[in-house]
Amino acid sequence: MASVRIREAEEGDCGQILRLIRELAEYEKLSDQVQISEEALRADGFGENPLYRCLVADLPPAPGDTQGQGIGSKIIRRVAQVALDQGCSQFRLAVLDWNQRAMALYKALGAQDLTEAEGWHAFTFDGEAMRKLAGK
Amino acid sequence: MASVRIREAEEGDCGQILRLIRELAEYEKLSDQVQISEEALRADGFGENPLYRCLVADLPPAPGDTQGQGIGSKIIRRVAQVALDQGCSQFRLAVLDWNQRAMALYKALGAQDLTEAEGWHAFTFDGEAMRKLAGK
Repeated sequence: MASVRIREAEEGDCGQILRLIRELAEYEKLSDQVQISEEALRADGFGENPLYRCLVADLPPAPGDTQGQGIGSKIIRRVAQVALDQGCSQFRLAVLDWNQRAMALYKALGAQDLTEAEGWHAFTFDGEAMRKLAGK
Repeated sequence: MASVRIREAEEGDCGQILRLIRELAEYEKLSDQVQISEEALRADGFGENPLYRCLVADLPPAPGDTQGQGIGSKIIRRVAQVALDQGCSQFRLAVLDWNQRAMALYKALGAQDLTEAEGWHAFTFDGEAMRKLAGK
């Protein structure tokens, strides 16, 4: 099997990253929540004070599906290295309760479901709520 | 009632911030999870590439409890302003399911419980899991 290379994203990857964000949102049935543009991805991640970091997996051109090559666990391993290098005491992922395949992978890699174990809920203030709160 | 002033935290606030982190963890029955030191809080928040931003509420010296002065909603309003200024499309809070008072406040201010509404779970990789993943 051809090997996968994990590397830091570059600004030129933003078009492909946005395509993957949209594919993920489609899988999660949340396409209406993707509002970000390629320009915003470039500005947020590659300006003076980057708001995010991103890893990408380079796949050698090959026929067939990209699943089953362990890309998810390779990326998570690299995230663990980056987090340790930064002095983080943990890192978190958000996952939908019906996405059993992702949950099983994260648990197999050593993650704990904090919502199940301790009762953590994620609350969001969306654009309308923020504007109302800020009086704008 | 004396008024509360919300401002950006300064490095000299880190001792008090750590005290509040510990009080919150005690309330949440999660004191064993507080591993951060005042030195790390200073380095992470006030170095060249800050890993967090923090708002603090200054209270004029007065007798009695600090509760019931609307400090929570004032801070959340300011967070909304900061998030909008930064171009954020939303901001999120994590809350424990038994903390009904916090949940009620967030909902009253316009937040949505994403765990309840969409089924989002928070997964964490702790220090031991990260070291195992990174082979360290």
